[in-house]
Amino acid sequence: MLAKIGVLTRNEFQRLKRELKNVIALDQAGKFVLTVEDEDVHTRIENHLTGKLGALGEKIHAARSRNDQVLADLRFYTKEQLLAIEGALLELGGALLAFAREHEATPMPGYTHLQRAMPSSVATWAASFTEALLDDLVVLKAAYELNDQCPLGSAAGYGVPLAVDRGFTSKLLGFSKVQNNVLYVQSSRGKISAAVIAALSQVMLDLARMANDLIVFSTAEFSFFSLPREMCTGSSIMPQKKNPDVLELIRARASIVQANLMQVIQITQSLGSGYYRDYQETKAPLLESLGVTKECLEIFVPLIRGLGVNEERLLGAFTPEIFAADAALELVEKGVPFRSAYRRVAENLGALKSRDAKESMLKKKHAGAPGNLGLEKIGRIIAMENSGLMKEEDSFNRRIAALLK
Amino acid sequence: MLAKIGVLTRNEFQRLKRELKNVIALDQAGKFVLTVEDEDVHTRIENHLTGKLGALGEKIHAARSRNDQVLADLRFYTKEQLLAIEGALLELGGALLAFAREHEATPMPGYTHLQRAMPSSVATWAASFTEALLDDLVVLKAAYELNDQCPLGSAAGYGVPLAVDRGFTSKLLGFSKVQNNVLYVQSSRGKISAAVIAALSQVMLDLARMANDLIVFSTAEFSFFSLPREMCTGSSIMPQKKNPDVLELIRARASIVQANLMQVIQITQSLGSGYYRDYQETKAPLLESLGVTKECLEIFVPLIRGLGVNEERLLGAFTPEIFAADAALELVEKGVPFRSAYRRVAENLGALKSRDAKESMLKKKHAGAPGNLGLEKIGRIIAMENSGLMKEEDSFNRRIAALLK
Amino acid sequence: MLAKIGVLTRNEFQRLKRELKNVIALDQAGKFVLTVEDEDVHTRIENHLTGKLGALGEKIHAARSRNDQVLADLRFYTKEQLLAIEGALLELGGALLAFAREHEATPMPGYTHLQRAMPSSVATWAASFTEALLDDLVVLKAAYELNDQCPLGSAAGYGVPLAVDRGFTSKLLGFSKVQNNVLYVQSSRGKISAAVIAALSQVMLDLARMANDLIVFSTAEFSFFSLPREMCTGSSIMPQKKNPDVLELIRARASIVQANLMQVIQITQSLGSGYYRDYQETKAPLLESLGVTKECLEIFVPLIRGLGVNEERLLGAFTPEIFAADAALELVEKGVPFRSAYRRVAENLGALKSRDAKESMLKKKHAGAPGNLGLEKIGRIIAMENSGLMKEEDSFNRRIAALLK
Amino acid sequence: MLAKIGVLTRNEFQRLKRELKNVIALDQAGKFVLTVEDEDVHTRIENHLTGKLGALGEKIHAARSRNDQVLADLRFYTKEQLLAIEGALLELGGALLAFAREHEATPMPGYTHLQRAMPSSVATWAASFTEALLDDLVVLKAAYELNDQCPLGSAAGYGVPLAVDRGFTSKLLGFSKVQNNVLYVQSSRGKISAAVIAALSQVMLDLARMANDLIVFSTAEFSFFSLPREMCTGSSIMPQKKNPDVLELIRARASIVQANLMQVIQITQSLGSGYYRDYQETKAPLLESLGVTKECLEIFVPLIRGLGVNEERLLGAFTPEIFAADAALELVEKGVPFRSAYRRVAENLGALKSRDAKESMLKKKHAGAPGNLGLEKIGRIIAMENSGLMKEEDSFNRRIAALLK
Repeated sequence: MLAKIGVLTRNEFQRLKRELKNVIALDQAGKFVLTVEDEDVHTRIENHLTGKLGALGEKIHAARSRNDQVLADLRFYTKEQLLAIEGALLELGGALLAFAREHEATPMPGYTHLQRAMPSSVATWAASFTEALLDDLVVLKAAYELNDQCPLGSAAGYGVPLAVDRGFTSKLLGFSKVQNNVLYVQSSRGKISAAVIAALSQVMLDLARMANDLIVFSTAEFSFFSLPREMCTGSSIMPQKKNPDVLELIRARASIVQANLMQVIQITQSLGSGYYRDYQETKAPLLESLGVTKECLEIFVPLIRGLGVNEERLLGAFTPEIFAADAALELVEKGVPFRSAYRRVAENLGALKSRDAKESMLKKKHAGAPGNLGLEKIGRIIAMENSGLMKEEDSFNRRIAALLK
Repeated sequence: MLAKIGVLTRNEFQRLKRELKNVIALDQAGKFVLTVEDEDVHTRIENHLTGKLGALGEKIHAARSRNDQVLADLRFYTKEQLLAIEGALLELGGALLAFAREHEATPMPGYTHLQRAMPSSVATWAASFTEALLDDLVVLKAAYELNDQCPLGSAAGYGVPLAVDRGFTSKLLGFSKVQNNVLYVQSSRGKISAAVIAALSQVMLDLARMANDLIVFSTAEFSFFSLPREMCTGSSIMPQKKNPDVLELIRARASIVQANLMQVIQITQSLGSGYYRDYQETKAPLLESLGVTKECLEIFVPLIRGLGVNEERLLGAFTPEIFAADAALELVEKGVPFRSAYRRVAENLGALKSRDAKESMLKKKHAGAPGNLGLEKIGRIIAMENSGLMKEEDSFNRRIAALLK
Repeated sequence: MLAKIGVLTRNEFQRLKRELKNVIALDQAGKFVLTVEDEDVHTRIENHLTGKLGALGEKIHAARSRNDQVLADLRFYTKEQLLAIEGALLELGGALLAFAREHEATPMPGYTHLQRAMPSSVATWAASFTEALLDDLVVLKAAYELNDQCPLGSAAGYGVPLAVDRGFTSKLLGFSKVQNNVLYVQSSRGKISAAVIAALSQVMLDLARMANDLIVFSTAEFSFFSLPREMCTGSSIMPQKKNPDVLELIRARASIVQANLMQVIQITQSLGSGYYRDYQETKAPLLESLGVTKECLEIFVPLIRGLGVNEERLLGAFTPEIFAADAALELVEKGVPFRSAYRRVAENLGALKSRDAKESMLKKKHAGAPGNLGLEKIGRIIAMENSGLMKEEDSFNRRIAALLK
Repeated sequence: MLAKIGVLTRNEFQRLKRELKNVIALDQAGKFVLTVEDEDVHTRIENHLTGKLGALGEKIHAARSRNDQVLADLRFYTKEQLLAIEGALLELGGALLAFAREHEATPMPGYTHLQRAMPSSVATWAASFTEALLDDLVVLKAAYELNDQCPLGSAAGYGVPLAVDRGFTSKLLGFSKVQNNVLYVQSSRGKISAAVIAALSQVMLDLARMANDLIVFSTAEFSFFSLPREMCTGSSIMPQKKNPDVLELIRARASIVQANLMQVIQITQSLGSGYYRDYQETKAPLLESLGVTKECLEIFVPLIRGLGVNEERLLGAFTPEIFAADAALELVEKGVPFRSAYRRVAENLGALKSRDAKESMLKKKHAGAPGNLGLEKIGRIIAMENSGLMKEEDSFNRRIAALLK
């Protein structure tokens, strides 16, 4: 862009670009080392250029400030990570869906308040998380959209007295648009980070819920599911232990993401417009949250694939009371008003008989019920989202490749 | 729907509907009172119907549980409030834009770290908030989309053994789709509330930032802006005081919304799948957050409209140092590498001369800079968003009117 | 105090005091009503006095500001509530201790990671909460000490040019000391509220943990404990349900207190020295947290007293693996190095035999272990704390009585 | 202790101790390296001992679990850090007091709502923070007391079937008491960490408030204070900048501590009794919070010592309105009821005359007011606290020295 507007000649641009590509090569060879004296990577690169190209290297910082550079880096990185997270999310959604298909007809007691409530199925449980993850995509995409704005040209928040072409820069870097107002660019730093972490927080709520379920459902007392051995650890004092450490860590790391959200919000909220150094402390929580969410999504895939289902224990938990609502609703079908039917069953709980769990479960045939989960349709949605995601990734990768050519 | 699937006869449906409309009329006349004994509004209504219609009233609870009823209420209410919030947001965005237009050429020092940085303008400051609010719309719409799913038919989270037509119910109530998996419906309660509050939190971050700015800019020491008298209060001991209480309350209420977000996240994250009574404590924070955000957006509109601009003080703050970056970039235009130009200016700060603030500010002509804020285009975006919002509101209102016919 | 320093004559003081006592009487008779026009209770009282006593009423606000008045009220109220909370805490600690004594020899599996770990006892579980609550007293007392400072005389944060006797005021109101620096008085408002809520948060962490335990231990699958019927509620659709709603609400309300803590911290942290209206929004979270904590402590007392213990189920959960560490440590007693003993047991888990749960549990005889819980000593500590608390309450009540004489 | 109860012979104990001291020596020489394969430092040490001493090394884990070992380490470390933090706090309190003494008679406008309110002094401002820090000591000591309990002997939370002497262990390690109930030991992990971070949070609230003040008071517009040059940084685009980065980072790091508190609370609150792996994620926030608080206290000492006071600007801000309350209270002294005096001044604000700032400020002579700050007494309190702290540190260090002999 600096070449396009005449701040650099064509030749200067070529020399700078060649040397910048050299920096990448050095870095890939592990030979581009930063020390504390370098201040940061931007100064390190400028110093390298100046060392190699003399005064020409000093031209590179024209029309920008460290503020908008750091922002551009952050958005770039966040974009890449969000795409990877969406990919991991769709893979986990798919793994859960496959698990649901495999156990579509396996009865499982449905719980409310952790008390046995009504007949349900393993597939209902598993597919509920696939749908949850698909909802998360909605907020992830909104966060992606906010993040996908090019900050360059804002400089320190007040623009520069040069005829920079911000649209051109934005296009080169593959951003979907220029973030217009130069002051808003700076003021949006903490806020967009918060929006991203809030979206990740939605994902972590789902993963924590799944972890909570699996920890309870794999106790000796429930024994509905058994965790893959490699997802458990032992104890230094108790030789018999097989503990669900991976699930506990996922659950606890959800709290890391939530705390990171609070940190970014709290820092951001106490500031006025424009850049403050406080924003530096919103960076680690953003990066950590992206990393934690990605990792937790990824670890869950083999965990679900290796999850054992103990049908005997699941059936054993179908004690007669679990059919109480069914019994009441049968009376409703015979014309008894619901409230009377409810009372009649409640007064004769002892008389409730055990029923066939699978039959009861499959009798719920309306949309989204155990007997009609719509797994095919969910599969199609996942496929469609995957294909959209791949297009976005392709375009992003092509953009980067073009830059590096 | 119950009539459609034959649980109610046409005649029963008519009688129930007539009596339900009667409940609304009673309520509007202040004659439908709830007491603690009534448990909740749903039981109160059922009791009313039973009182009036006998056994027929007992039929009304068929195919549903209090869990999905409460969820449906919450989503309905949230939808209405989100539409109102989007309206208030666009109005404030418009007021800020009008303010920006009025002061498009009024210079204002740009600050970073609360230290004078570079020339800017009153319009740059004001329009930065309009753009911020428009970004908030992206996350508000995502939250709206999550919330706009019909939960009815989930019952207690495991469906019902009746052939309910969930799509029909959803359409009647104006939801954009059925939330499919019956278990996910319940598990999504806290999570969708969190997504809504997280979106509101984005709005409050902007309002808090604007409040922070105005509190500082209206001190005796800055005196850039003067607040409308009716937005200030006095002191019980100091006769001279004119305090920015409204702004301080808005800022503090941003923390209410953030704390509410934490509360909902914390409650939700510790639960497994299905309904738990804990969810009750996610309701107040959701309702409060909706109310607070709407109110704070609304109060800001007259505050911005009545904001006084003290041009003399603004100009007085343009001390020579604020032009240092301009001076360096002028050397760049003459071909001096940026880093050398920077050093040259830094070593002769004392020699910097005062310049014409307006001229300097207007020289930044690239997209989004003080001399080229694109206010027209922003105005068109606001108009477009307003028109989309009105359509959504219309459709929502028509739906409700049809229900009450 | 105003009489003592001559701002009021003796006679004026008597007339004002008489009328102030009249206000109390009116209030107790429900005849001292506040309307929105009254601004707040302080203005309402001043207006009442002026109405009755003319210009004399206008003298009452001398040497103070609403800022230090509101602070004095808050500290007074907080003090009273903290004393009540300490009382409720000791009562619950006592109830748990009594429960522990009753079940001192009842075996209960000890869990880690919600997996069966080692033999333990019902008393170990119950007494662990008594000790937890006693630790909470340490932080509650620290918070009490911070709160027990008299703010009056700070006025708006900068004192008054009158020779007020702050020590005398403090003594009259029963504060343990004057909070000295007039500016710190104002700056400490949010901070001391945060310290109080942080102490309450410790209590709620214990109550939430106890609720979490009881919810799991009273599932059909565990069935170790049964909750008093009146602490459970049913379902509107499932006639058989007996849900632990009270425990779920306690657990969720713990999150209210934690969110309130965040709110107060967040508001406080963004402010500089001196009074800001933002502090108003730290009041509701303080009052709510005090109320919630007190209520949750109180409701737990009858819950623990009515808690049923199912010895058969407890014993049934002592499957052989739970004795694995015991088996390894027996080898240690015979001279086998621990790590070898551990390996030997781990390699022969199948060979582990069931043992007598009670015997195993009682074999742990070192301090604090199931066979030696020190319940007597804990009982003595509770008695001692109760007696200290009663002294503090007495002195507080005598002080108030003296004021009202 | 294992030697005392006969699990180790005297000779075995001597050999183990020698080798353990050897580990320390190796570590100090940088030769005791941990790799990922080592699992953790405890296993690494045990492996080292086994490598050197054969089967004897395998004896070392008797009577303990990694759970109580990790807890013991954490408490030890926390204790050491809390003592260092109290030391740093007292040093900063002293630096502020010295600053207050130096500027005892320097007038400074007192602000409320960031609006000029009443006459005050530089010393009032500075000493308000010394008093704040002394209040923090109260909660820090309470947290220290909770932390100062010996967890060893709890093992995995259910004790061990060996006659361990917990009191002896506790005394050897310098803990002030044994934490009695073996289950409470484990359940208290997150809770005590939360209590410690909550105490640190109080300190950070004070440091953030001081940072907020100094950032505003060192703007070009206020210019009351000037920050030491080495506490400021420049800009990469604006040659003139001198930004208060250090203060901004301290302020932002306060939010790190607050977010850490939330993280620990959130993780802890969702757990039942006994150990869960989730607790691992409460460790980093504890360590980080201790480190951040210590560092921020320490950096503030040279900042306060190097703080420049601009008396001219301070005096210049004493515009006549700041004396309005003084004028009203003068009328009170002449017998005018306060409310009438207030009205009379309010109606003639224009007539207010400027006064001598110092005289006005010194006229407030009651306890804690600008004219009577009690700096001597505060100095004595700091000296006393310092001496108590040194005793505690001495005893702690002697204990460690004895262990290593």
